[in-house]
Amino acid sequence: MKDIILEKQLQAIEILKEKDVDMWLTFVRESASIHDPVLDTIAGVNVTWQSAFILTKQGHRKAILGTLDIQNLKDMGTFEDITGYVKSIREPLLEFVKSVDPQKIAVNFSKNMNLADGLTMGLYLVLLDHFAGTPYGDRLVSSEEIVSSLRGRKSEKELKIMREAVRITLEIFDETGKFITKGRTEKEIAAFMTSRANDRGYQVAWEADSCPAVFTGPDTAGAHAGPTDRKVEGGHLINIDFGINYNGYCSDLQRTWYILRDGETDAPDAVKHGFDVLKTSITKASETLKPGITGVEVDAAARGHITSNGYDEYPHGLGHQVGRVAHDAGPGLFPAWEKYGNLPFIPLEKNQVFTIEPRLYVKDHGIVTIEEEVVLTDTGIDWLSERQTDLYLLR
Amino acid sequence: MKDIILEKQLQAIEILKEKDVDMWLTFVRESASIHDPVLDTIAGVNVTWQSAFILTKQGHRKAILGTLDIQNLKDMGTFEDITGYVKSIREPLLEFVKSVDPQKIAVNFSKNMNLADGLTMGLYLVLLDHFAGTPYGDRLVSSEEIVSSLRGRKSEKELKIMREAVRITLEIFDETGKFITKGRTEKEIAAFMTSRANDRGYQVAWEADSCPAVFTGPDTAGAHAGPTDRKVEGGHLINIDFGINYNGYCSDLQRTWYILRDGETDAPDAVKHGFDVLKTSITKASETLKPGITGVEVDAAARGHITSNGYDEYPHGLGHQVGRVAHDAGPGLFPAWEKYGNLPFIPLEKNQVFTIEPRLYVKDHGIVTIEEEVVLTDTGIDWLSERQTDLYLLR
Repeated sequence: MKDIILEKQLQAIEILKEKDVDMWLTFVRESASIHDPVLDTIAGVNVTWQSAFILTKQGHRKAILGTLDIQNLKDMGTFEDITGYVKSIREPLLEFVKSVDPQKIAVNFSKNMNLADGLTMGLYLVLLDHFAGTPYGDRLVSSEEIVSSLRGRKSEKELKIMREAVRITLEIFDETGKFITKGRTEKEIAAFMTSRANDRGYQVAWEADSCPAVFTGPDTAGAHAGPTDRKVEGGHLINIDFGINYNGYCSDLQRTWYILRDGETDAPDAVKHGFDVLKTSITKASETLKPGITGVEVDAAARGHITSNGYDEYPHGLGHQVGRVAHDAGPGLFPAWEKYGNLPFIPLEKNQVFTIEPRLYVKDHGIVTIEEEVVLTDTGIDWLSERQTDLYLLR
Repeated sequence: MKDIILEKQLQAIEILKEKDVDMWLTFVRESASIHDPVLDTIAGVNVTWQSAFILTKQGHRKAILGTLDIQNLKDMGTFEDITGYVKSIREPLLEFVKSVDPQKIAVNFSKNMNLADGLTMGLYLVLLDHFAGTPYGDRLVSSEEIVSSLRGRKSEKELKIMREAVRITLEIFDETGKFITKGRTEKEIAAFMTSRANDRGYQVAWEADSCPAVFTGPDTAGAHAGPTDRKVEGGHLINIDFGINYNGYCSDLQRTWYILRDGETDAPDAVKHGFDVLKTSITKASETLKPGITGVEVDAAARGHITSNGYDEYPHGLGHQVGRVAHDAGPGLFPAWEKYGNLPFIPLEKNQVFTIEPRLYVKDHGIVTIEEEVVLTDTGIDWLSERQTDLYLLR
């Protein structure tokens, strides 16, 4: 963990040079209760008191924190230049900032990117108080571009971990396909998958009450809902959204099965057609994906294929980045809806990892979803997940 | 859990009346990754999209959230008046706010109280955008007083849970006293306590790497540090800071032992004197505690007793509130240090639960700490924890 954090710190310093930002200040307090996720990427500790984690274009890597928090940071080994304080952070913070005299200070807030928005409003006001009487309060800008690039541009070390997370997750999906049978409930199937992950020593990738999310049949709850006591029956489409946290990085995948009715040897045409339209929408989206394109264009490729085949459009974005959290920061494969802010319009970059996860509804049977993971290369993508190309049939 | 949340919602509405605040708006997004802890008190769910949880003086209990998040909230059963949206929260949010037309809207930010400061800076700017062209952006105030009173004023149901959390924790301390012996390491003792908690089905109260915190001997790491491979030896003071999370509520207690050297039948006078001074400082602080007093006065009673006996003052506050988190929100028994903001100066209220946890250092032996929990009554306090009145001696 320490190695990856040091690697990301150096990567961040390069990003500061590239974006011509003098200083990146991550300002936090009591970070175990309201946790700025950037800490996991650049520090690897939580703190109790007001604390500043600072990287500069010149290469400073400075931490200023309450004396009682110092030992933990030293044990983690991710910062060497550490200043402690007992009563107020103001003096050591101002002293360091004045010594660098940055013209532009990126701080940890963002309108559009939740994961770059760890600075709470009250603590922001406290920071302005600390900077009172200096020019620095007027030099604060959002660090969202830095965080977006830093989280998004996966290193080889990170990609290796993420490929393994995907591989293990698909292994669990395979085992689950053998477990699913008529009469089992969504809850039973979810518990099976969780135990398969835990037995291997891994936590699930997002909240346990909806990871896995299991939906069987035509009358399921909406996405993000937890599994129910609904039983698998013949004629059902069953789909599952699941991921694990492997060495600090998440996977996020979906697969769909069809449950044959007595006497059936294949899925009904309507189901097969829905599956093919969905699969092709993923192919079409993947063919547009490369550095420089915007997410809104990629989403449109899949969304358009689905609606032009007469299905309702999916009520969410086509895909998001994956990393230390399942829904990671930065640009996504999103439509131009207000709630996505500017995220659909930021050009994509090499080494970003995205999900592709359209959905459509087949009347009387249920939902078809497939979610794959891809990484952007110089000219296109590599699939991190072996694609689901056939509808899985179960009795 | 649902019952306590509904009880707290009604309590919150009474607090809104008392403080003459028309509307309390908790505005959040992606709350699993950056989690506003107020959600645990008033909603019991996490959300993905921008969401508003609103209580009003007139008694509205309204939730506005992305359609995909609705089912979870319905399952939790803590809100009945729910509006969903797909593309933007602006319209349903404005419609509801206009219908109430509040003169004062308390929102979830606070300079001084971390646990009342769940609104991130970027999301605050988004909220201002939503309110653009209306008078409501100018009517926003901090909800810190509401959150402070709501978290602080424990109901009978809450106190019952917290008493049980303390009882179980002291039981684990007792078992630990029998486990501690010369040659055991801090890490072994910590692992023992964690397993005693987990075996009972409970998680520890704060981060696992420093809960329990175990310190043996004169050369220990600072508070908040994790246990080490240091071994218990004769002549050591050993002290432990530990708590559990029991049904959503935390305990937070400390106990101190002395390890007799070969041939010793009692602790050295310096150790006994240190223990007595510390114990008496807790008594003196407890005698000042009652509704209406300020924390800075309570802290001074203990701090003054310790320094007037020639010991260094402890480098932290005397005590904090306990509740859903170990370090809970609102006024504390803090000295007038800048980092505590206004928290030392807010009058204390009935049914608030505080720790009392002074410390002092005995040269050549180690740290003496005791941490008790008390609840404020009409005229003074009740002890939630059976006090440590004698230094525990071990061979």
